[in-house]
Amino acid sequence: MRIYGDKRSGNCYKLQLLLSLLGKSCEWIDVDIMKGDTRAHSFLEKSPNGKIPILELDDGRVLSESNAIMHYLASNTSFVPSSTYSFSQLLQWQFFEQYSHEPYIAVARYIAVYLGLPDEKKAEYESKQAGGYRALAVMEHQLKVTPYLLGDTISLADISLFAYTHVAHEGGFDLAAYPAIRNWITLIKDQKGYIPMNA
Amino acid sequence: MRIYGDKRSGNCYKLQLLLSLLGKSCEWIDVDIMKGDTRAHSFLEKSPNGKIPILELDDGRVLSESNAIMHYLASNTSFVPSSTYSFSQLLQWQFFEQYSHEPYIAVARYIAVYLGLPDEKKAEYESKQAGGYRALAVMEHQLKVTPYLLGDTISLADISLFAYTHVAHEGGFDLAAYPAIRNWITLIKDQKGYIPMNA
Repeated sequence: MRIYGDKRSGNCYKLQLLLSLLGKSCEWIDVDIMKGDTRAHSFLEKSPNGKIPILELDDGRVLSESNAIMHYLASNTSFVPSSTYSFSQLLQWQFFEQYSHEPYIAVARYIAVYLGLPDEKKAEYESKQAGGYRALAVMEHQLKVTPYLLGDTISLADISLFAYTHVAHEGGFDLAAYPAIRNWITLIKDQKGYIPMNA
Repeated sequence: MRIYGDKRSGNCYKLQLLLSLLGKSCEWIDVDIMKGDTRAHSFLEKSPNGKIPILELDDGRVLSESNAIMHYLASNTSFVPSSTYSFSQLLQWQFFEQYSHEPYIAVARYIAVYLGLPDEKKAEYESKQAGGYRALAVMEHQLKVTPYLLGDTISLADISLFAYTHVAHEGGFDLAAYPAIRNWITLIKDQKGYIPMNA
């Protein structure tokens, strides 16, 4: 079993962090999106959508989409709640992450960190700020009530949202007005097995 | 149990179609996003992200995100595969739908159908075409091999992708070059319990 990914990518870090919290390891193959590795024929044969991370099983089957791969890796662990409602809530947060959070906070960070915030990207970068703060407000609303997104216990929802939230400042987002999010970041960093991004 | 939604929305139609295929019904409360219903205080109290559809249980608990709600409604049915790999594949397609399909195909349709393709939105509308066709190519790649996205059996993955794909022409997308997708659309329309959108 091996993961193809880029360690600067929050989507890839989700898998690294989850595996470490689970006390598991997995072969890692570095992929450089800036060099076009994910548009190469050999990569598209594995995963036609051309995005990282992907997980390749020993029998050659492949999974893409970070949040889906997490379910494969964490199946039957405490990171996945068993009640139908809580499980659906977990998915709710992961879909929120991909639709309402990542396209703003991760993309702003991508423009700043990967592209170096060039002049021709400044308007796009600025356009991401309002949506990013809206997503942070939704998280703050929940984390003021419960320490983790689903309640008293850490789950895949927290790992999915942590990945880009804890580096949101790299996309220009200030967490000063979000004390519950800052407390939650500390709780996750204190988990046994925690590893920082890009380790 | 009640759903708050707009019957012109593909995300809402996913739930209508799923319930009908399951032979279930659910109270439906119409929400008009164009009139600002999802920004109203009473709606945001139920769901702070302010998006439809939402599912409200009889005890007041709420779920948002169409693809997550589908898992709540279809738990322990044949629409959800039981093997860990197939289940993760199902999620893979649903995350693909929200990140690589909906933001192009549904948004182009939104600009055309809801907004009437005004001049100031034409550049955005055009910018959605390439990404939409990329998503259709990924679907075609799979549906050339298997009749449904996960194999021989219909699953939530098909319903999630069907919602906006079968009305892709309303966003300017031509399915002529995608025969496997067109065949799959026919297969879904032939399902017992199928209901059209906006019924």
